[in-house]
Amino acid sequence: MTRPLRVAVTGAAGQIGYSLLFRIASGEMLGPNQPVIIQGLELPVALDALKGVAMELDDCAFETLHGMIATSDPDEAFGDADIVMCVGSRPRGPGMLRSDLIQANGPIFVGQGKSIDANAAADAKIIVVGNPCNTNCLIAAAQSTRIPKENWTAMTRLDQNRAIGQIANKAGVAPGEVKNVFIWGNHSPTMVPDIDQASIGGKSVNNTLDAQWLNEEFDATVRTRGKAIITARGKSSAASAGNAAIDHIHDWFLGTGSNDFVSMAVPSDGSYGVPEGLIFSFPCRITAPWKYEIVQGLEISEGNRERFKKTSQELEEERAAIAELL
Amino acid sequence: MTRPLRVAVTGAAGQIGYSLLFRIASGEMLGPNQPVIIQGLELPVALDALKGVAMELDDCAFETLHGMIATSDPDEAFGDADIVMCVGSRPRGPGMLRSDLIQANGPIFVGQGKSIDANAAADAKIIVVGNPCNTNCLIAAAQSTRIPKENWTAMTRLDQNRAIGQIANKAGVAPGEVKNVFIWGNHSPTMVPDIDQASIGGKSVNNTLDAQWLNEEFDATVRTRGKAIITARGKSSAASAGNAAIDHIHDWFLGTGSNDFVSMAVPSDGSYGVPEGLIFSFPCRITAPWKYEIVQGLEISEGNRERFKKTSQELEEERAAIAELL
Repeated sequence: MTRPLRVAVTGAAGQIGYSLLFRIASGEMLGPNQPVIIQGLELPVALDALKGVAMELDDCAFETLHGMIATSDPDEAFGDADIVMCVGSRPRGPGMLRSDLIQANGPIFVGQGKSIDANAAADAKIIVVGNPCNTNCLIAAAQSTRIPKENWTAMTRLDQNRAIGQIANKAGVAPGEVKNVFIWGNHSPTMVPDIDQASIGGKSVNNTLDAQWLNEEFDATVRTRGKAIITARGKSSAASAGNAAIDHIHDWFLGTGSNDFVSMAVPSDGSYGVPEGLIFSFPCRITAPWKYEIVQGLEISEGNRERFKKTSQELEEERAAIAELL
Repeated sequence: MTRPLRVAVTGAAGQIGYSLLFRIASGEMLGPNQPVIIQGLELPVALDALKGVAMELDDCAFETLHGMIATSDPDEAFGDADIVMCVGSRPRGPGMLRSDLIQANGPIFVGQGKSIDANAAADAKIIVVGNPCNTNCLIAAAQSTRIPKENWTAMTRLDQNRAIGQIANKAGVAPGEVKNVFIWGNHSPTMVPDIDQASIGGKSVNNTLDAQWLNEEFDATVRTRGKAIITARGKSSAASAGNAAIDHIHDWFLGTGSNDFVSMAVPSDGSYGVPEGLIFSFPCRITAPWKYEIVQGLEISEGNRERFKKTSQELEEERAAIAELL
């Protein structure tokens, strides 16, 4: 039998966690033949709720779920984990600036990074979902001496999926017809959705859809979608965020299907002039299970160059703000 | 291309709906090659929330999701629906007895039954999840003159899955090792979990697990699991209920895999002496896509005979209580 993979999930009883765990357990993330053991981490105050979630997971009788741990001890949650999904983070409170949020999350990700490094599998794969995810990932990765740097990633797949959804709706096609849309930079309003490589049913998006709509409404919608969801639902994105985390891990493990590449925020190796070490969203090609490479040689359009610089600078500023944690 | 199937879901922005819609859209319910169009129904007060859910579904870029309607008009939601999932119902308020609950839900399911009959596809398949689901289904089915009676079903799959989960945990095996557990009767504490046909890794459950545990703790746990989840989570089962609804429809369409049969509450044809017409949970064999037959000739153990009669009588009493709606 295939060895079960251990999947650690932080913030496991939260809204995103609740959307995520059942799809991990059902086999959607790692495939129907790959058993999993879920190792959920919650704050002590939410541990009872997490135990209730574990009961509900039992009540699903998922064939691929071979075990579930519910704990408030990070060392236990990350123990021997093959995959670590850092979903939990300190949310933005009323009046908090992005810089306050970064400061508030710093100590959390220092602690989690150390615990992951000390307890997870030596080749663990990490995705940070909790915001500000790029810089939270940078902080956690900096605590690690044992797990390879390239295994620390953050999630911009939700932004990519949002962009695909907008294009599919505009073109009146199913989302599967839209290929090779991706995101550069930070998971923040400075992100740069790039559709210069994208196609709809094999035809260039740029030659198919109205340029003004692409430059204005499409771009603004993708960059500010998080707020629009909060306005509509009265709650932040949960199921769509959980879904993007599943997609991120799924594709990293099992490949991108009919897409050539996928958006992942990964440590910059200097590609495209991005300062080394920043956790920056690039188009990534999956070359083997758990192996990605940053797609090289794409041209950044003139319209995107300034914005590319801006999102990169924002990440440098975020790095400078938490320099003492690195 | 395969024609998309239209899936109507009531209570679509509720807790169960929110767990359910994303897994329908991702292809888990009807298979990865079957496109779907989701037609969500909500009360006017929850329509904005449902529109937010529709935005999040767009943001998942699911390849199998070919459209989404969010409406508070039942006739629109049920229009041409191939599958109708009645998830919404009036929940039990403080101090309400089961009989009050049945009375409160009657008019809702009269209205929905009429609208389904008038608007859904002539061969629509219906599952009622909203409680009391057996009698709600009976009421809705009674409004229908066009859709075959056997297409109206209610959900006891959650009870079956809970029973499998308990047995798997007790035996220390993965749930997939446990086969042919099923439920007789009403989705209420009178239900009768039956493990006389069940096996673990090919061996009879009765010969493997302790008889006292099976007769006492196992049985009581399954029958009262809903309350235990509420105690642990502070909320009623949502993801596990949504999951069971997916399993119910999945197996009805695609078969039961390595299980011989599955629990479905379906109109009694008099099998096992159950009064005709009651929506009663039987072991059902799937003989072709969307075709089930009630498994015949099973022996009901001496220990279960009284309880079998009791759950059947309870359903008769529920039917008598809403006789004017039939």
